[in-house]
Amino acid sequence: MKAIVLLSGGLDSAVALYLAKSKGYEVYALSFSYGQKHTKELEFAANLAKKAGVKEHKIVNLALNSWGGCSLTDDSMDVHDGDTESTEIPNTYVPARNMVFLSVAASYAEATKAQDIFIGVSQVDYSGYVDCRQEFIDSMEKAINQGTELAVEQKKPIMIHAPFINMTKAEEIKIGLELGMNFADTWTCYKGDDKACGVCDSCLLRLKAFEEAGISDPLEYQIIKK
Amino acid sequence: MKAIVLLSGGLDSAVALYLAKSKGYEVYALSFSYGQKHTKELEFAANLAKKAGVKEHKIVNLALNSWGGCSLTDDSMDVHDGDTESTEIPNTYVPARNMVFLSVAASYAEATKAQDIFIGVSQVDYSGYVDCRQEFIDSMEKAINQGTELAVEQKKPIMIHAPFINMTKAEEIKIGLELGMNFADTWTCYKGDDKACGVCDSCLLRLKAFEEAGISDPLEYQIIKK
Repeated sequence: MKAIVLLSGGLDSAVALYLAKSKGYEVYALSFSYGQKHTKELEFAANLAKKAGVKEHKIVNLALNSWGGCSLTDDSMDVHDGDTESTEIPNTYVPARNMVFLSVAASYAEATKAQDIFIGVSQVDYSGYVDCRQEFIDSMEKAINQGTELAVEQKKPIMIHAPFINMTKAEEIKIGLELGMNFADTWTCYKGDDKACGVCDSCLLRLKAFEEAGISDPLEYQIIKK
Repeated sequence: MKAIVLLSGGLDSAVALYLAKSKGYEVYALSFSYGQKHTKELEFAANLAKKAGVKEHKIVNLALNSWGGCSLTDDSMDVHDGDTESTEIPNTYVPARNMVFLSVAASYAEATKAQDIFIGVSQVDYSGYVDCRQEFIDSMEKAINQGTELAVEQKKPIMIHAPFINMTKAEEIKIGLELGMNFADTWTCYKGDDKACGVCDSCLLRLKAFEEAGISDPLEYQIIKK
């Protein structure tokens, strides 16, 4: 029983990895070098994959920074400090990122004959990203089942598992702890410094989640706002 | 009025490019370097884009050859000579290729605010590729309209145009001629020699189509089987 796990090196995908392993899947981890300003997440992804004992870990180069529009990949834009109250789509939005990642995961699934794809998105803590919603995951699953030879010709449907889609990050953290994870192995910060910045959108959401879970985050931070 | 045109350098995508131009679109052409064994198609794509006067032409590097399974990208497999009567999926199938290409096109569409994507697939001459069928195009369009901020938040739906989906290649060729195309500008052969091989699946389908259209192919071939 094989599964593709989208593994960014962040908290959500790391819990998804441990969850897939706990269900007995042979895991093919998939990460992307898509023009992020730093490779820190990818180093964390490689370490997580190794620790979890995956069957294979692929890092695919994909220059989504060709058209910019996102401060995570566009050198002309700064990553803004976060504001957890904001309802605007942050400028860290990478156009159609999860669609591209799931499509490439489908290609990998087809090549390895894996019928399960895990993605650690949540529509609860989704920061306004439209590609973290259940509607999107459902429509993408349909497209995958229409666009792969494995599903159409061999009649082996492919399922997208988004186990945290209706969970808060605090709930995810509790699951990760039950599965024996060490959250110091995960990198969430949008910046790539030695220690997590503690002030970007992503750090703020993570810190808030640990606070809600009543657990202290083992990762080191430069600043923790109180 | 902007459109993304998926441009491989082959016959179908070239006609799609000329068709989009004839409809008045400002064209953003998108090609992929996905681990093909030769770059001949990409050279043809660049030349076509220039001749057609596109606004921008992006070539995205995407290592779909990481997992092989296809003789177009896998160095350990040979491209077989074609057999137009065969109903088997040929070994030139790249897992989920059109899904990946359309997803990246959606990312590009979002970044440029283009609401139209052109793809030159046909389910008539589709060689058994499941990702050339109308059902797949429809489900992918739905996924794009659920997974992009442009469609969901800005309520600017994105449409996939597959104008040749129910056409034979012979019909496409006639349209291309009406639009003033020179088919010597397009490269179809799976191999990357000076002249098209004339014996691979792709050459055979192209030659058959020109014969059906009653037009002689201006491209030079090594061998033309009679």
